[in-house]
Amino acid sequence: MNIPSKLIDNAVEQISSLPGIGKKTALRLVLDLLKRKPEDIERFTSALTDMHNNIRFCKTCHNVSDSEHCTICSSPYRDESLVCVVSDIRDVMAIEATEQFSGKYHVLGGIISPMEGIGPSDLTIEELIERVKEGNVKEIILALNATMEGETTCFYLYRKLAPYEVKLSSIARGVAVGGELEYTDEVTLGRSITLRTPYEISLKR
Amino acid sequence: MNIPSKLIDNAVEQISSLPGIGKKTALRLVLDLLKRKPEDIERFTSALTDMHNNIRFCKTCHNVSDSEHCTICSSPYRDESLVCVVSDIRDVMAIEATEQFSGKYHVLGGIISPMEGIGPSDLTIEELIERVKEGNVKEIILALNATMEGETTCFYLYRKLAPYEVKLSSIARGVAVGGELEYTDEVTLGRSITLRTPYEISLKR
Repeated sequence: MNIPSKLIDNAVEQISSLPGIGKKTALRLVLDLLKRKPEDIERFTSALTDMHNNIRFCKTCHNVSDSEHCTICSSPYRDESLVCVVSDIRDVMAIEATEQFSGKYHVLGGIISPMEGIGPSDLTIEELIERVKEGNVKEIILALNATMEGETTCFYLYRKLAPYEVKLSSIARGVAVGGELEYTDEVTLGRSITLRTPYEISLKR
Repeated sequence: MNIPSKLIDNAVEQISSLPGIGKKTALRLVLDLLKRKPEDIERFTSALTDMHNNIRFCKTCHNVSDSEHCTICSSPYRDESLVCVVSDIRDVMAIEATEQFSGKYHVLGGIISPMEGIGPSDLTIEELIERVKEGNVKEIILALNATMEGETTCFYLYRKLAPYEVKLSSIARGVAVGGELEYTDEVTLGRSITLRTPYEISLKR
């Protein structure tokens, strides 16, 4: 693509550095921004700068927060004996959207991935163990992606948490609600048989 | 979506104001920016601000430019008697990418669209007539989208340019190269028969 202006080219370069945004899309976005008023651009850029400069991470669960402790950790209505371990902030939002979880969270900040050079020390695993040591946590739910890296991280946490008196559980893997058996992959279908649940439990939902 | 931080919410709001970017995508982009170094954010936002503050439009053809006249208008190798009228800066880039056009451009800045409240006076039509009046332009190629609004704009220009001694042509409409007759819509196929070209001409490409 032959962009006639260095200034636009620079802007396209920056926008296309975002994940999933190619050069053509970036150009479309840049030309949209170009048409706006100066104060709109000011609002746009300062929203990003403000966010980056002033965002804080909850000292307890490492979720994003505008203050020292996030709203979930400081809520008296949440069960602090139940902690759900997730890899990412987006996972917290996804689980919150279900309105099925009343405990607290622990955001690892990623999962163990030797391919991407992410080791256990890059994650908030030590901080999770500290939380367990304090003695209030009774159960930890591992809610990581069902990928190779996710399973590895689960196993690492299982080994690390073994010495402490805490119940470790994993979110259920199985056929998705509304899913058809015929189109479910073999591993998932196999697991859903091995990990079958008493029928009365599924009646509760 | 329940975003736990006002700062992130603001940034998502701004990013999702871009065309084709929804809230979920915006959140993904914002969380990607959040992971970057402060100097990266500075570079990102200043590229946008610089572009918006310093961009200029070519005084002749109204294409984007870093200086008073764009590189195409100031090039001695381009034929100034041939002017291609396009609606948008992106159309200039698209035609330049074909490497088939050696004339100059005129960017209208949109097309006549009563639905969106864009009238002839919002476009650079007067400026185009001024260019024609100067007497150097021998032919004008109308290269607007083949939509209702595009056709209306073409007709308006045809009427406006009638008093002047300038040849008016339109880019060819027809079956796309590589396209199959069976899947071409009726209007296009009908036109491609009415506007058939001598076979020798198509041999030239």
